[in-house]
Amino acid sequence: MILEKIRDPEDIKLLNSAQVDRLCRELRDFLVENVSKTGGHLASNLGVVELTVAIHRVFDTSKDRLVFDVGHQCYCHKILTGRQSLFHTLRQLGGLSGFPKPYESEHDAFVAGHASNSVSVALGMAHARTLLHEDYSVIALIGDGAMTGGLSFEGLNDAGASGEPMIVILNDNGMSIDANVGGLSRHLSRLRSEEGYNNFKRWYKDKLQGDSPAKKHLYNASSHVKHWLKSNLLPESTMFEKMGFSYMGPVNGHDVQKLTQMLTWAKEKNGPVLLHVLTEKGRGYSYARQDPERFHGTPPFDPATGKPLRQSKPSFSSVFGEALVELAREDNRICAITAAMTSGTGLSRFAKEFPDRFFDVGIAEGHAVAMAGGMAKQGLIPVFAVYSSFLQRGFDMLIHDISLDNLHAVFCVDRAGLVGADGQTHHGCFDPAFLSQVPGMTVLCPSSFSELKEMLHFALFSVTGPVTIRYPRGAESVYKGCSLPVQFTPLREGSDFTVLTYGILVNEALKAADILEKSGIFIRVLKLNRIAPLSADEVSAMLKGTTRLLVLEDCLDAGCVGQRVAALALEAGVKLDKLILRNCGSTLPTEGSVEQLYSSRKLDGVGVAASIEEALHEQ
Amino acid sequence: MILEKIRDPEDIKLLNSAQVDRLCRELRDFLVENVSKTGGHLASNLGVVELTVAIHRVFDTSKDRLVFDVGHQCYCHKILTGRQSLFHTLRQLGGLSGFPKPYESEHDAFVAGHASNSVSVALGMAHARTLLHEDYSVIALIGDGAMTGGLSFEGLNDAGASGEPMIVILNDNGMSIDANVGGLSRHLSRLRSEEGYNNFKRWYKDKLQGDSPAKKHLYNASSHVKHWLKSNLLPESTMFEKMGFSYMGPVNGHDVQKLTQMLTWAKEKNGPVLLHVLTEKGRGYSYARQDPERFHGTPPFDPATGKPLRQSKPSFSSVFGEALVELAREDNRICAITAAMTSGTGLSRFAKEFPDRFFDVGIAEGHAVAMAGGMAKQGLIPVFAVYSSFLQRGFDMLIHDISLDNLHAVFCVDRAGLVGADGQTHHGCFDPAFLSQVPGMTVLCPSSFSELKEMLHFALFSVTGPVTIRYPRGAESVYKGCSLPVQFTPLREGSDFTVLTYGILVNEALKAADILEKSGIFIRVLKLNRIAPLSADEVSAMLKGTTRLLVLEDCLDAGCVGQRVAALALEAGVKLDKLILRNCGSTLPTEGSVEQLYSSRKLDGVGVAASIEEALHEQ
Repeated sequence: MILEKIRDPEDIKLLNSAQVDRLCRELRDFLVENVSKTGGHLASNLGVVELTVAIHRVFDTSKDRLVFDVGHQCYCHKILTGRQSLFHTLRQLGGLSGFPKPYESEHDAFVAGHASNSVSVALGMAHARTLLHEDYSVIALIGDGAMTGGLSFEGLNDAGASGEPMIVILNDNGMSIDANVGGLSRHLSRLRSEEGYNNFKRWYKDKLQGDSPAKKHLYNASSHVKHWLKSNLLPESTMFEKMGFSYMGPVNGHDVQKLTQMLTWAKEKNGPVLLHVLTEKGRGYSYARQDPERFHGTPPFDPATGKPLRQSKPSFSSVFGEALVELAREDNRICAITAAMTSGTGLSRFAKEFPDRFFDVGIAEGHAVAMAGGMAKQGLIPVFAVYSSFLQRGFDMLIHDISLDNLHAVFCVDRAGLVGADGQTHHGCFDPAFLSQVPGMTVLCPSSFSELKEMLHFALFSVTGPVTIRYPRGAESVYKGCSLPVQFTPLREGSDFTVLTYGILVNEALKAADILEKSGIFIRVLKLNRIAPLSADEVSAMLKGTTRLLVLEDCLDAGCVGQRVAALALEAGVKLDKLILRNCGSTLPTEGSVEQLYSSRKLDGVGVAASIEEALHEQ
Repeated sequence: MILEKIRDPEDIKLLNSAQVDRLCRELRDFLVENVSKTGGHLASNLGVVELTVAIHRVFDTSKDRLVFDVGHQCYCHKILTGRQSLFHTLRQLGGLSGFPKPYESEHDAFVAGHASNSVSVALGMAHARTLLHEDYSVIALIGDGAMTGGLSFEGLNDAGASGEPMIVILNDNGMSIDANVGGLSRHLSRLRSEEGYNNFKRWYKDKLQGDSPAKKHLYNASSHVKHWLKSNLLPESTMFEKMGFSYMGPVNGHDVQKLTQMLTWAKEKNGPVLLHVLTEKGRGYSYARQDPERFHGTPPFDPATGKPLRQSKPSFSSVFGEALVELAREDNRICAITAAMTSGTGLSRFAKEFPDRFFDVGIAEGHAVAMAGGMAKQGLIPVFAVYSSFLQRGFDMLIHDISLDNLHAVFCVDRAGLVGADGQTHHGCFDPAFLSQVPGMTVLCPSSFSELKEMLHFALFSVTGPVTIRYPRGAESVYKGCSLPVQFTPLREGSDFTVLTYGILVNEALKAADILEKSGIFIRVLKLNRIAPLSADEVSAMLKGTTRLLVLEDCLDAGCVGQRVAALALEAGVKLDKLILRNCGSTLPTEGSVEQLYSSRKLDGVGVAASIEEALHEQ
């Protein structure tokens, strides 16, 4: 095993060509073996084995700054930079993160998780390097999917004009998470296939170079053509060159030697370089290669068959997707929008059944929101299904392009609350606050599948302005009821304490009630069905008879529902003797199962029960 | 006067060529005369006189959808669509908005104010038109400045690939608000100057076409060249074509006839078209032409001399700019970033004195934040000066690229709170809530110039993580003290009520105290110097002895400081008998002077005093 001997990435520089090939094979085996147990992002990592090795042959990532974009493709880098022995802890509580984390290693230059930031970050680093007279390379590694995000464009536009030496490696596998879309993608596929310029040069030489005086004359004359081509067209024949980058490529991303050579050249260039690398997602593991979408993020699976170890169960996402298809059959104004997450958001069937009314806009959440505004303004009912943490990119557009004109667009916010193994960057911990800030926004929180379906119907046909339905990753649990269209529903009565909560946390509140009952403590469990808008009158009604209140949420504290309820209660003159806000506090949880994370933040039934017992004890 | 006779934009279609020219002259005179009295956006509107007239000659904007981007250039459109007689009320309370507003007219297709959304919105509208089998044109009118925003790129990328018939008019005046920057700008200036292709075609014909057999042979052979050029390079020679648009232009934006012709062609094209129009900002009014930056947004001025009627006074922006220059002389790690707002944010002197450490990234707030992350990570101290409402675009990057790694970047948030005449889209009414949500963010609120300077020093050298200083448009007033580094400062003592506030609203609180004193009511005025983080202990200390509290803010209600203080007080066991949260509620104020808007929302001294008297009366 060569891989085992790589203690430090500098060791990679010492390998000969055959050893490099073996290292790549071993890396692939290691990836498949480990990810089949832990689950994680497989296809993207299998695609960048050679590229990662080549990067470490040319650069020293303890000093040179390698900025990953999204970071789905950082596993090989982690394995090669001293974290091989920890790799079995991937995405687990206290274990390795599935994304680059500077706190894990000096080799992780910057956080990653959200798309399209790498060029901006790398440019900032390059500026720092230059201004502080230091000497290191800065490399952004970005996929063609992330390149569709407007932030990339902003970064490229600025970096290209700056002239700042830096390297952008475009890892082009023709996919983001689902197949890639948009004009840029078409441009890339042209570049990929186009050996145009080289063919042209050959043809041109053949045709026009020769001994006859006429040919000579014309060849010379048409050197004008060549010059014009070179100065007017070819030096800017790619979008990247138009923005001021030197473009290199496309290069075979599975040829370490070629990659090493190109990276060495790029390193020596005194300006911004874009290196276009063609890779194959899932390479070297046939199941992943055949179905890179399924193996983008995979649960544990059997490496021999590629089959997941557990059967996939209905989730809020899949229930949403099915319900939307049903409704779309009845009303042809209904459209679905996704930002490169067709399958993740449960929209695959919709996409198939209503291709004309289905819009995958690429990784471009801001655009999705603004486009939904235009659609709603002209009579469609747009439904944008999006992960909570990615909708943060659309915050301004929600205010400007949706709320200001009170447009009826529907936001189906998936992965709301804690998501588990993807950790900090992917938890949906901000939306209860930032969505409630959007003037006129209604925010509905289903606690069960049947409620999700009812709320979707309600959002589409009974709400006039902007409306959000937020629901978590995964499945419903204990509570399977349905309580629309009321603002709140008492699930359990008791006068010792009131627990107010929403979404699937009602299950933890009910568990707490069960636990406390055994100690003779009886709590009221209030399920909030709509967290925005909230009025003082509604809060008064809700808290009638309540003097001790715990508000349970899996978001951060600032701007949470509990704070708003507390303020409204005070304004309405409701007297509360005791208030406990139980939420994630002011820091984002890391990796771990949702259950573990609930427990670590005392958001589970046990934690809630303990808090209440303690509070009652104090009084 | 032809202009007076234009009651309906359809009248424009009936004018002959000479009448059109006269209309344009009259429009310019009307603009200068009116804006010199009301103040407003002049240079951009002078630049689009002919373009607006041409649009109305070709389209019917009551049915066809004309989507403005930012909307600085909508005055001519408003004047020509029935709002001429109201134009003297521009930007005033109850008057015409300076931006497109659907509630004002059926001719205003969509709200505008924030940059780069128009292509996305127009695409949404075009989708709706097509899916609902309706028949109208959709036009996005976007400046070259707004084109640098990533949202434009997302929109173009999707629109180009969609094939949806729509027209994007690129109004290229080589400026955003300040001179334009970035690779795209370079590309546009090439397109502008480049008559390359046409020259080439002429040259090519001259050189290679002829009667000699050799020439003929080679001309035919090199038709291969032409074909290759056409199919491989020229059809994609602009970035827009690479993304799937038909590119038309560049065309002289002051030639109504030519514009009319091009727009007619564009209208008939069955797919996405980009029409590149060259205009001159400030055209027809020499002072504005010579200094388009100063006449971008101008206060009332003397039309004969171009001089402002009032002398400009020091503002929070100018004090910030001067202070930053002083500090940057001492510490060469300090860098300044602006998103196309060098002068507006007070950075002109910094830009001049430290060109290497000054970064204008174009209208690209998300990129500015992420780049600041990269800079901070590698040892610089980036200071991003930005208007509050535009920083909404950077919300996700503040969390992801700054907060997650607790990076020390400084955000100088100008135009915080109500901004007055620019209205809804420009008020800084969200930042107290969304900035407080960013984990680890410190938010400081100076109430005076001297405090701003102290806080800037403190933010740069004494805070370790991310830090914001938020300050309003305009000048300090009564309060000129300085109270760093404590969390809060009592400005007046009294036991009847406590008013807690921050920033320049301390002046209104002090006025309220004065008013109430005359009725024998004595209030405590607490000035909050830092609104985030806030702890229960701090709130306890702050509210010691307080049982009746009014929190005064000029932001929206959801997530405001008052809600957070109320919740923390309850959690800490502070007993409040009465709580009044006095803020903008859940809707954004429209145009008007800041004083008028304060008064209309009862945020002024009189309103606050009245609320307190009423509350005391009730008890």
